[in-house]
Amino acid sequence: MPNAAARNERVEIVLRGPSHGNPFVDVELAATFTLDDTTAFHIGGFYDGDGVYRLRFLPPRAGRWTFTTQSTARSLDGVRGVVDVDESVAAGPVRVSGRGFVRADGTPFVPVGTTSYAWTHQPTALQEQTLRSLATAPFNKLRMGLFPKSFLFNSNEPERFVFPRAEGGAFDTTRFDLEYFSHLERRIDELADLGIDADVILFHPYDRWGFARLGAAADDRYVSYVVRRLSAFPNVWWSMANEYDLLTAMRREDWDRLAGLVVANDPVGHPLSIHNWVEIFDYTAEWATHASIQGGGREMAQSVAKWRNRWDKPIVVDEFGYEGDIDQGWGNLTAEEVVRRFWEATLQGAFLTHGETFWSDDEVIFWAKGGTLRGESLPRLAFLRELIEAAPDGRIAPLPSDWDFATGGGDGYALTYFSDARPKFRTVRVPQGMRAKIDIIDTWGMTIEELPGIHESDVRVDLPARPYVAVRVRAAD
Amino acid sequence: MPNAAARNERVEIVLRGPSHGNPFVDVELAATFTLDDTTAFHIGGFYDGDGVYRLRFLPPRAGRWTFTTQSTARSLDGVRGVVDVDESVAAGPVRVSGRGFVRADGTPFVPVGTTSYAWTHQPTALQEQTLRSLATAPFNKLRMGLFPKSFLFNSNEPERFVFPRAEGGAFDTTRFDLEYFSHLERRIDELADLGIDADVILFHPYDRWGFARLGAAADDRYVSYVVRRLSAFPNVWWSMANEYDLLTAMRREDWDRLAGLVVANDPVGHPLSIHNWVEIFDYTAEWATHASIQGGGREMAQSVAKWRNRWDKPIVVDEFGYEGDIDQGWGNLTAEEVVRRFWEATLQGAFLTHGETFWSDDEVIFWAKGGTLRGESLPRLAFLRELIEAAPDGRIAPLPSDWDFATGGGDGYALTYFSDARPKFRTVRVPQGMRAKIDIIDTWGMTIEELPGIHESDVRVDLPARPYVAVRVRAAD
Repeated sequence: MPNAAARNERVEIVLRGPSHGNPFVDVELAATFTLDDTTAFHIGGFYDGDGVYRLRFLPPRAGRWTFTTQSTARSLDGVRGVVDVDESVAAGPVRVSGRGFVRADGTPFVPVGTTSYAWTHQPTALQEQTLRSLATAPFNKLRMGLFPKSFLFNSNEPERFVFPRAEGGAFDTTRFDLEYFSHLERRIDELADLGIDADVILFHPYDRWGFARLGAAADDRYVSYVVRRLSAFPNVWWSMANEYDLLTAMRREDWDRLAGLVVANDPVGHPLSIHNWVEIFDYTAEWATHASIQGGGREMAQSVAKWRNRWDKPIVVDEFGYEGDIDQGWGNLTAEEVVRRFWEATLQGAFLTHGETFWSDDEVIFWAKGGTLRGESLPRLAFLRELIEAAPDGRIAPLPSDWDFATGGGDGYALTYFSDARPKFRTVRVPQGMRAKIDIIDTWGMTIEELPGIHESDVRVDLPARPYVAVRVRAAD
Repeated sequence: MPNAAARNERVEIVLRGPSHGNPFVDVELAATFTLDDTTAFHIGGFYDGDGVYRLRFLPPRAGRWTFTTQSTARSLDGVRGVVDVDESVAAGPVRVSGRGFVRADGTPFVPVGTTSYAWTHQPTALQEQTLRSLATAPFNKLRMGLFPKSFLFNSNEPERFVFPRAEGGAFDTTRFDLEYFSHLERRIDELADLGIDADVILFHPYDRWGFARLGAAADDRYVSYVVRRLSAFPNVWWSMANEYDLLTAMRREDWDRLAGLVVANDPVGHPLSIHNWVEIFDYTAEWATHASIQGGGREMAQSVAKWRNRWDKPIVVDEFGYEGDIDQGWGNLTAEEVVRRFWEATLQGAFLTHGETFWSDDEVIFWAKGGTLRGESLPRLAFLRELIEAAPDGRIAPLPSDWDFATGGGDGYALTYFSDARPKFRTVRVPQGMRAKIDIIDTWGMTIEELPGIHESDVRVDLPARPYVAVRVRAAD
C-alpha cells in the first residue's frame, strides 16, 4: 500500500478481498479520503480480479491524507490508511473556467483535438504507430471510444472487449475484461505522456455486438465501473456518447441518469459532455460542463456566438467534417478548409477537433483506426496553437469585430482573420490609447511579417491579396 | 410613320403635338394596338421634346396591327394607323416559365448575369470599354441603375441625370433629360446586340442628389415615364430597387404602388422584381415575377430549395459577394469561391449574378463603373453555361440527390458537383433502366473526360481527389 504520492498524480490503494461468486456485482467498496479534517472525497473502488480491489485517488492538494474504507465485504470494510502527498509540478486535470478550460494549477488549456474512435481496438503495431504519430502532432485531446466500432471501413473484430465473452460467445455484462482495461489504461497513460487528454466516449451507435442496447442495469454497471477505474487519470474527459441521437434505445432520462453516475463516481470532476449526430444536445443540462457539438458547416463560426450565449459554457466543436479524400461528404475536406474553420471558430471563442479520413487500401483511416497522420492541416494547426498560446492570457476570446471578418484575442492582443477572402488592403483599427505592433500572418504559409514601426488609431495596411491571411495587433509597450 | 415592322422588334410611332407649357406633365397620350379585332394592347406614349411624342410597341405576333390614339391634347387624339408586322427570327423578351425563364419564342433563357451599377454614368470611352469587355464575356444579363451612384469608390459626378437641372442646380423632377434617355436607350440596344438583357434598377439608396427621396408624385412620374420609354425594348428587366431595405423613405405600400405603375405601363410584361440588402423581400407579391435576392453566403445552395418552395417562382441570386480583392468582405471573393457558389446554386435550380471588385488605383471597378472584366471565374462560368445549355431541355432543375452533394439536371442528364471537397472515388448512381455515359468534369480546369463504356446501375468511379470536380451522367441512347 503506497503511503507517498504527489499532488495531481494518481494514487492507488490495493486491497485484497473475496474472489468467490461475482465480486463485480456482489461487492461494493468505497473510501473516504480526508485532509486536515476539512477536505473529504468519496472514492468508489472496483474489483480487478483474483481477489484484488483497487481504490484510485487523484489528490488535489499536498498534505497527509487519511482514508477509511466502507464495503459490503467484511474484509474490505473499515480499512484505514495514510497517504502523504507531496507538492508536484503536474498541472493536473482540466476543468471548465468560464467559457474555456484550465488545468488544476490554473494554466490555460486550449483543446486542439483529434479523433481516433477505435484506435485501441486495433493490432498492437498499429496502436504503437498511432502513438508515434500523435507524438509529433499538435493535438492535446483525443476522442476515443471504449466500445469497438462497426461502420464503413471498420469491419475488423477487436481482440478484446469491455466485457468478457461467456460460453457460446455471448458477452457477460455482469463482469469486465480486466486485460481490456489494463491495456486501455496503459494507452491512456501513454497519451498523458504525450500531453494528450483522452476524451473517452462511453456509448456510440456503430455497433454489431449489442453494446448500443445493453439495457439500463448493464449500462449502469458499465458506467460506474469505467468511471471508478479511470477518474483518477488526470488526462480523462467523459463523453456520454458519440452521436447520441442515433442511439435509439436511449432516452433523455437515460443520459441524465448515466451522467449522474459519472458525476457520482468522479470526485475529480473531469469535463463531461455528450456529442450529437444531427440534433444538438441541450447543454443546459447541469451535468454537461461544456458543449461537444457536431455541425456548423462552412459557416460554423456564425453559430458559435449563438451557442456561447445560449449555454454560457465552453463550446467544443468536436466534429465538423474530416480532412481527407474518401467518398463521403463528411470525409473529404481539404486541409485549407479545415484550417479555415479552425481559425474562424477559434476567433469566436470555440475549440475545435480535427480528424482525418484519407483513403487507404487497407482501410486504416486515422479517424477510426489511427495509424499515421498525414493531413496538411497539422503544421498549420500547430502554428495556430502557438499563436493562441502567445496571447497574453494564453487563450482567445471574441473581440468587437467589423461586420465582415471576426477579431479574437485578449487584452492587448487581437487577431483578425480574412478567411478565404483576399483583400489587397485593409484598415486595421488600433484601439484608442494603444501603441501597437502590427503583424501580417499567412496562416497557410505559416509566416509572420511585422510591419515597421509602432502604430496608433486607424492604419491602412497592404495585404497580399490571397486567401488565409490574418492580421495581429499587439501592444508594443 | 412606320407601317412595316417585325415580330418582337421595337416599333415606334412618332407624333407631333403641343410643345408649350410642360408636356411631360400636361399631356397624356396612349394608343390601343389591335390585331384581328381579337388582341389589343394599351400602350402609353411619352413626350420626347420639341413637340415630339412617341409610342413604342413590341408586337408579339405578326400580322396587320391597327392603332388608335387617345390624348388630352386634341392634335394627338384619335390618330389612327396601321403597322404590318412580319415574322422574325428574334427570340423576343424573357418571361417566367415555371421556376425558370424562356424567351417569347419558347427558347429557354438561363440568366448568367453580371453587374455594373453605374456604367452608363461614366465617361464615354469607359462605357465603350465596358461594352467591348462584355462582348467576350459569358453574361446575358446586366444589372444597371438609372440613377448614378454615390458610394465607396464612386464619387465622380455623371454628365447627365434622369432629370434636367433647373436654374441654381436643383433638379426639375417634372421634366426628363432627353439626352440622358436617348443615350441610355442606345446603351440598352447595344447590350441587346451582345445578347445581354438590361436588368434596369429603378431606385437605389446610394445617393447624394436626393433621388432616393423624391416623394410619391415624382416617383410615380419617373416610373411611368421610364417604363413607357423602355418597355418596348425586348431585352429589359425591371428591378424596383437595389437594396430596397436601405431606402428608408419607402414603405411596402410604395413598392406595391410603384410596381403597379410598372405593370400598368408595360404591356410586354418584362420580368419584374426587387432586390434586398439584408431583409429578403416577400416575393409572394403578385407583381414580383421572380426573386432577386442578395444573400446566402457560403451555404447559399441550402437556402435555394427553401426559397423555391416558399414562392414557387424563379430564384435569381443577384448578389452573393463579388470576385475581387478590395478591403470589404463583400468584395474579395476568390474566383474559386464564385464558381463554387454558381455550381452549387445552379444545381439547386437557382440563377446567379456575377460581379467584380478588383482594386484599381483609378477606382474604376467593374461592379459599379464597368471597364474590363478580369475575373478568373469568367471562362469557368462560360463553361458552366455551355453545360447547362447542353442539357436536353436547356436548363437545370434539382434532382433527387445524396445527402452530401447536390445533383441537378433534367431528363436523362444529371450533374453532381463535389464542390471544394475532394473525393478520391464515388459511387455514381445511374437511374434504373438507363444506359448512361459518365463524364468526369473538372469545373475549374474546364475539362470533360468521358469514362470508357456504357454504364448501368451503381458504378464506382475514381475521381481526381481535388476540389471542383463534377460528374455527369447522360443517357447513352
